[in-house]
This record gives sequence, C-alpha cells and structure tokens, in this order.
Amino acid sequence: MTNTQVTLVQIDNYGPWTVTPEPRREVDLQTLQSRLYADLSQLVGDRGGYVFFTRFDNMIAVTNGLDMDDHAVIQESVGNRYPVSISLSVATGQSPAAALSDATERLQATGSAQDKSRREILEGRAIESDYRTDEDVHIAHFDVIDATGEYTDQLNAFDSFIEIEQGYAALMKYMRQENDALSFFVGGDNIIATCPELSAAEYEAAIDHVTAVADVDLRVGVGIGTDAHNAGMDAKHALEHARADDTKVEFLR
Amino acid sequence: MTNTQVTLVQIDNYGPWTVTPEPRREVDLQTLQSRLYADLSQLVGDRGGYVFFTRFDNMIAVTNGLDMDDHAVIQESVGNRYPVSISLSVATGQSPAAALSDATERLQATGSAQDKSRREILEGRAIESDYRTDEDVHIAHFDVIDATGEYTDQLNAFDSFIEIEQGYAALMKYMRQENDALSFFVGGDNIIATCPELSAAEYEAAIDHVTAVADVDLRVGVGIGTDAHNAGMDAKHALEHARADDTKVEFLR
Amino acid sequence: MTNTQVTLVQIDNYGPWTVTPEPRREVDLQTLQSRLYADLSQLVGDRGGYVFFTRFDNMIAVTNGLDMDDHAVIQESVGNRYPVSISLSVATGQSPAAALSDATERLQATGSAQDKSRREILEGRAIESDYRTDEDVHIAHFDVIDATGEYTDQLNAFDSFIEIEQGYAALMKYMRQENDALSFFVGGDNIIATCPELSAAEYEAAIDHVTAVADVDLRVGVGIGTDAHNAGMDAKHALEHARADDTKVEFLR
Amino acid sequence: MTNTQVTLVQIDNYGPWTVTPEPRREVDLQTLQSRLYADLSQLVGDRGGYVFFTRFDNMIAVTNGLDMDDHAVIQESVGNRYPVSISLSVATGQSPAAALSDATERLQATGSAQDKSRREILEGRAIESDYRTDEDVHIAHFDVIDATGEYTDQLNAFDSFIEIEQGYAALMKYMRQENDALSFFVGGDNIIATCPELSAAEYEAAIDHVTAVADVDLRVGVGIGTDAHNAGMDAKHALEHARADDTKVEFLR
Repeated sequence: MTNTQVTLVQIDNYGPWTVTPEPRREVDLQTLQSRLYADLSQLVGDRGGYVFFTRFDNMIAVTNGLDMDDHAVIQESVGNRYPVSISLSVATGQSPAAALSDATERLQATGSAQDKSRREILEGRAIESDYRTDEDVHIAHFDVIDATGEYTDQLNAFDSFIEIEQGYAALMKYMRQENDALSFFVGGDNIIATCPELSAAEYEAAIDHVTAVADVDLRVGVGIGTDAHNAGMDAKHALEHARADDTKVEFLR
Repeated sequence: MTNTQVTLVQIDNYGPWTVTPEPRREVDLQTLQSRLYADLSQLVGDRGGYVFFTRFDNMIAVTNGLDMDDHAVIQESVGNRYPVSISLSVATGQSPAAALSDATERLQATGSAQDKSRREILEGRAIESDYRTDEDVHIAHFDVIDATGEYTDQLNAFDSFIEIEQGYAALMKYMRQENDALSFFVGGDNIIATCPELSAAEYEAAIDHVTAVADVDLRVGVGIGTDAHNAGMDAKHALEHARADDTKVEFLR
Repeated sequence: MTNTQVTLVQIDNYGPWTVTPEPRREVDLQTLQSRLYADLSQLVGDRGGYVFFTRFDNMIAVTNGLDMDDHAVIQESVGNRYPVSISLSVATGQSPAAALSDATERLQATGSAQDKSRREILEGRAIESDYRTDEDVHIAHFDVIDATGEYTDQLNAFDSFIEIEQGYAALMKYMRQENDALSFFVGGDNIIATCPELSAAEYEAAIDHVTAVADVDLRVGVGIGTDAHNAGMDAKHALEHARADDTKVEFLR
Repeated sequence: MTNTQVTLVQIDNYGPWTVTPEPRREVDLQTLQSRLYADLSQLVGDRGGYVFFTRFDNMIAVTNGLDMDDHAVIQESVGNRYPVSISLSVATGQSPAAALSDATERLQATGSAQDKSRREILEGRAIESDYRTDEDVHIAHFDVIDATGEYTDQLNAFDSFIEIEQGYAALMKYMRQENDALSFFVGGDNIIATCPELSAAEYEAAIDHVTAVADVDLRVGVGIGTDAHNAGMDAKHALEHARADDTKVEFLR
C-alpha cells in the first residue's frame, strides 16, 4: 500500500506578473521558469524528493521525507532569490491523485492563483516519521523502445517530438483515469509516474493502451521505496534490466 | 513570405551518458537539462532568437539574426561549462517545418545522436544579412481562454494540466500537418508557434480544431518581424488585445 | 570550546584544464566558477553549512552537521553537472585553522592539485552526532562602519574597494596569526570568520589592529551554535544590535 | 592610447534589502550574488566585455562594444529575473581609473546607493562605433609563479590564500596609484587588470613591488584589442608564452 506525499508548488500571481506593466521578454520568462524548476529540483532532491515541471507555474512534487519545516525553508529560499514567490500545499493519500486533489483544494481554499493578496501560503501536513514505511512510494520510469533508431535518427526533430508527445498525452490520461497515478514527461523519451501499488498486468495494460492509441511502444521499470529518490533509482535500474532483457515491465525493490 | 531560420540543438550522446557507468540521479539530470535550456535561452535570446525546450535533449530554436560564428560561440560556451557537449545544425526555409527537416537531415548525415565519436557538429548555413527582411519570422502566441477560472482554480492541479496538455497535443499535430508550423508549450497555458504566413481564417481553423478534439478554447496573437524576439513581442501585445477585446485571433506588425 | 568541522573543496586539476587545449574564454571560466560556488552554497547550506569562495578553485567550508555520506552526494552531484570534478577533505579541530591544516594535509597526501590521475578524492572524518554540542561553531560577522557614507557614496567604486580590500587583507592575516581563525570576504563590506572561542577583548584587538594598519573601522557580531547557519544567523542579529547601539562587539547565543 | 569604456554596476539599495525585515540567510545571499555575477558575465561577455565581481554589490565592467541599448537590455533582463534591480553608469577615459571615476560620479549624482527611490538608473555614454580603434583596451593577466608547487601543495589552503590575497592587495593598490589601472582577482592565482598603455618596464616595476611588499612572485601577459575579450585572449596567450619561456612580462597584439 503506497502512502505518497505530494506537494503542489504554485507561483503566486504569476500570469499577471508576466504582463505587468507590459509583457516581459519571453527569453527571460523561460530562463526564470526553468531555473526556478532546477533550484526546486535541487532543494527537494537534497531531501529525497522529486519535482516535476508540469506547467512550470504549477509544479508537482513527491515529497516523502520532507516535513513542513523543510517546505518552509524552501519557500523562504525561493523568496530570497527570485522576483516571484511560491505557495506550497502538502497532502498525503493512498493514491497520488487523491493526495494531489487534497493539496489542491487546500490551496484553492486560500484564494485564487491570481489573487494579489494571496502570497507564500504554506498549507497541509507531512507524514510523521513514525508512520513512514519502505513501501510508501512507487515510481514507474517509462521510456520509448528504440526511440533513437525509430525516431531521433529517422524523422525530423519535430516529428520525433510529436510521436513522443502523443505517447505522453495518451499515457498521462490513461494512468490518471485508470490508476490514479500522475505521469510526467521528464525529457528525451522518458516519462516518470508516481503510482499507487499496481500489478505487472496493469502496467502492461497501460503500455498496450499507448501502443493502440498513439502507436508508440513503451517499456517500464518500477521501483518501490521510502522516498522518490530511492524508488526512482530502483525504477531506473529496473528499466535497464528491461532494456537488456527486452522485456516490457520490470520491478525492483 | 516567411524565411525562418531554424537551429536544431542536440546534446551529443546524451542517452548513454545518463546511464553510464550506472543511472545518474534524476534530480541532477533535471537540473542539468533545465539549466542548459535556460543558458541557451539567454545565449540565443541575447541575439534576438528563441529556443524551445522540446525534449530537452533535442531543442529547436528560431535563430534569425544569428550567423554561424554566433552559433560557434554558443557551442564553445556550453562545452566550457557543462559535462556534455552540443551539436548544432542550421537551415532556412519558407516554412519552419521545411527548415527543420533540412537541419535535421544535415545532422543525421554526420552520424547517430548516440554515436560516441560524433561530437560538437556545427552544420548548415545562416541567412546572409543582405537577404533578411522584416517579414522573415511569424510568431503566434496562443493561450487558453480563462485558464485560471476554468481550470487552475477549479480542478486538481494534474487534471488542469491534462486539459492543457491534451490541447497542446492536438494543436501541435494540427499546425504541423496543416500549416508546416512548429508549436511549443512554454509553460502555464501558453503555446508559442513559429509559422509560415497564415491567414486569420487558418488560425481560426486551428483553434476550432482544438476545441473540437480536446475541448480546450484557445486564443492567439500573431506578430511579424525580423527575428523571433521582435515578432514574439508583437505577438504578446496582439494577445493582450485579443484578451481585452475578447476576440480569438489578433495580428500586430 | 569550539569543535569546527572544516571541509576543503578543491577542483581537480583545474589550472591545466583552463588552458587545455588552449586558454578558455574568461567569461565562461568566471561563470563556471561562480555557479559552482553558488551550487555548493546551496548544497552545503541545505544541511546547515557555509561555503566560502576563497580562491574559487579552492574553497573552504564549515560543515558541522554534514556526515561523509552528505559529502559523497555533493561530490556526485557536482560531477553530474559540471565539466570538472571536485575533491573533498574533511577534518575537525579545536581551532578552525588546525582543522583546515589537517584537511589540507590529508588531501595533499593523495597527490598534487594538478595531478591528472587524482580525481574525486573524499577523505577525512566527520564528527559523530553524539559528539556534537551547541557550542561547536563560533561565527563572527564583521562589517565596515558606515561603508556607504564613507566610501560607496564618496569615492570612486574602485577606491572604495581598495579600502575594503586592504581592511580585509589586514583582518584575515591578523585573525589567522593571532587567533587561528579563518576570515572570508563575502561581498559588500562584509567579512565572515569562523573562530575558536574568543573574548570581546580579542575581537576588539582585531578591530583596533585593522584601524591601525588599514585605517578601516570595523564592527562585529558573534554567534555560537551547533552549525554555521545557527551561529551565523545569531552573528547577523548581534551585528544588527551593534549597529543600532553603535557598539563595536556584540555576542548573541 | 587606450580608450577604455567602463561600466559601474550597482545593486540598488542592496544593504538594507539583505536585512529587511530581518537578516536573510547567508547562503541565499551568496547564491544570489554569485549567480547575478555569473549572469552579468554572460550578458556582458556575449558582447565582448568583461565583468569583475569586485564587491558583488558593486561590480566593475569593461564594456567597449556595448552601446547604451545593450546596457538597457541587460538591466531589464536582471530586473525580470532577480528580486533586486541594478543601476548602470557608463563612462570612457584614457585611463580606466578616470573612466570609472566619471561613471561613479554620474551615479552618485542621482542619489545614494541606499536611497530607496533611486532604482534602475542608466547613465552615461558609450563610445560611438566610428571612434573605436583596435587599441582601445589593454588587458594584463597576472598569475603567481608556481603557485601550485609553492603554495597549494605545500601550505594549508588558507595560508596559501593569505599569500595570494596579500599579493593581490599590494598589486591592486600599486597599479591604481602608479598607473591608473584597475586590477581584479579572478580566482585561483589569477589577477586581471584593465590598464592604460604601459611599458614592459612599468609592468616589471609592479611585479617587483609585489615581490618586495608581499613576497609573492608574479608574471604577466598583456594583450591589446578592440574589446576586453580580444585583448584578454591575447593576454592569456602572452601569459602562456611567459610561462613557457620563464619570462616575467610578455606582450601580444
């Protein structure tokens, strides 16, 4: 049984800021967003968590191992170094989607994402350390079978990207609807999902669905651990095994 | 008539590097990728261009205004500061998709993306300054109508993201197939496309397609200029007009 | 009695790298060095430590609270994201200077800073958690009395800097020779020193020495704590008190 | 005859910001400062200039090749990405010190560095392109003879640093007073100076002075060019020649 702790990271009042007093240079916005994401990756990653860039103005993190004080330090550090501030909402649930719904509702209850006076909210509860187990987090790491040979070295770079993007769009929707899992594109041909406990058959069904809908062939390695980093490293190793043995689903724990 | 100069940026032999000698920590990969993207945004942006993160290991840039020497400096600067190197391939065409196909083929001809000995390729040709015009680049900046009210403040953060992602997946495919345009998600509810010359009716058809297929309502501002920055700033202003007047397509030049 | 844990950070074979195969662009070296320092500040700072840029190729950190595993993760993270690697040597002593001498000797024993085959050394021992006390680290935060009124708003920017630099050069040497303390310029008119237990009179003597030798008037706040961050925040508050009350030496614990 | 264009970069109202509402975490300030410096190095460096970190809150740049519009873009880009803003003042003179004095006075005339209402000042004049020559900038690159063998591999890391720092303190003061040159420590055992036209004898005198006062033996390569980058690369090559031939002063142009 998983017990995923999810944190919603939302840049406060970001949309209005990007066009006030007039639209800001796109390259500066891109730089700001991607560096903020990189910094959060390090700040959360130093404590065993994973952050996903998602929409960049709304990011989703798996934060088992981070207590509310850790969240407060991260919020303060961003406030000290960026022209924008962030709100954080933390929740836990048996499925990642349930946890995120809870976290989102808590944040929405404090005001709109574009409410000028709603700043640096820190809401929710982290799992107390006594209640943590070594099965709390399940991470599934997907990639595209022979992406380089099939796409990167064959199609033009955008058409390769279309294939991967359609595969991702299909997988993220299926995994959310069927499994209450949250799936994130992380670059290259890689997708990382935070999942509840799922069987090999359920992973196979997801892969088959993507092949059917988007004609993209995926493979997955699954890891289980106390936090995203532990589970994620096992997932990477499982994926290496799947690649070596030419299998579609591999577990490691 | 547009004359878009497109640069394909490819990290050399990146996939193998990420798992050699064993899989590297995901947070470090995420940090590396997003910072490299931020740096390229600045390096290319300083000279009037736009870079899109695309797959992160393969990025696509609109580089009108950058000559081959500029590209060489950028390549050298990345090589001096990162553990990975990049290859660059530059081409021009009446449509962005044609330009990118040309650039991709030139790079593929030098070897595979995962060829160990293929490093720091610099291929292609930039537009000579005498041939540049103030209509070379068309940028279309899309966003989702009332994304905050409809999604961010209503749904959980992942379900909002699913909506935006499905809208993007539909738009990117349609614009590529119908218009030879390249469309990129740039964060929040924003998509930026580099386009050939298109009529208002053609933009409307794209928006209608996305509504029909993904049930997401878009709006677009279009700008025309000598380079991505000029055209892009006009597109942003056009989008502000569309928002203020509650219209779906606005041009500014 | 202090028990300062000091880590020497040395970029491996950096000098030769900067000129191989020919001299690299200075702006890239500056960017690389200052970002590496920024990243180390965050990585060490997340765990309660302070890093000082010192010579940039050799940095000195106060790392009470970081065990050897923490050091290993930091070393790995740098190796994953930079074109250069770092060696780390950790030691403890009643005076910071003694600890640093020990750490330096351990690293020198493994080979020269410019030895090609000496890479990613991780040497030394961290304090076991049972032996940590809340008096282990003493931080002294100095600044120049009325630096803005006396220098920044009066002299040209380099002549202001000369004054501050001469003040720093005098203080760093005195504190090392008389007190076995290590003092670091940290920007503006600020100098932060990691010290053994010193009396108010000893701090006054240091301030008087700098006035006599360099004609620069300093003030100092001193904090004591389990780690650099705790002690350093107290030192900052003590310095605010000194500023408010126009005194020269203030302690807080 | 040199015609150095110097830009003074000053963070607006920085001192008060660092302690408002209470002192900010030192590691965040260090990260902010060093990243701002890195970004300015890239922004100015992309256009052929050099920035020196100096005090971090006041930085000095050699900006031949950058016009006032370039300065405006840099100022805007920093404002878009940092919680602090910068003021820029540009001046030219036959000696770097004269240029900097002029730039400083212009900025001081607009208000104090700690004046809340003085923000994002952009003052001064850049050299018009018709008046630029290929002898405008002289860069001298100093390093310490056998620093690794004499210091890094022998002394403890702080005592090595004391030697280099005392050498720098002596050189910066001498070069300013005798030659109206501005000298900056740039990491390792390297000092880069922007100089008026000086003879080999004058450089030798500076080196002799540092040996006499601080017992540190320096060597220097000198380059001459249209901008800091051109002159600086020649200076680096000249320094390599000096190292190879065991000479103390080498020119290249």
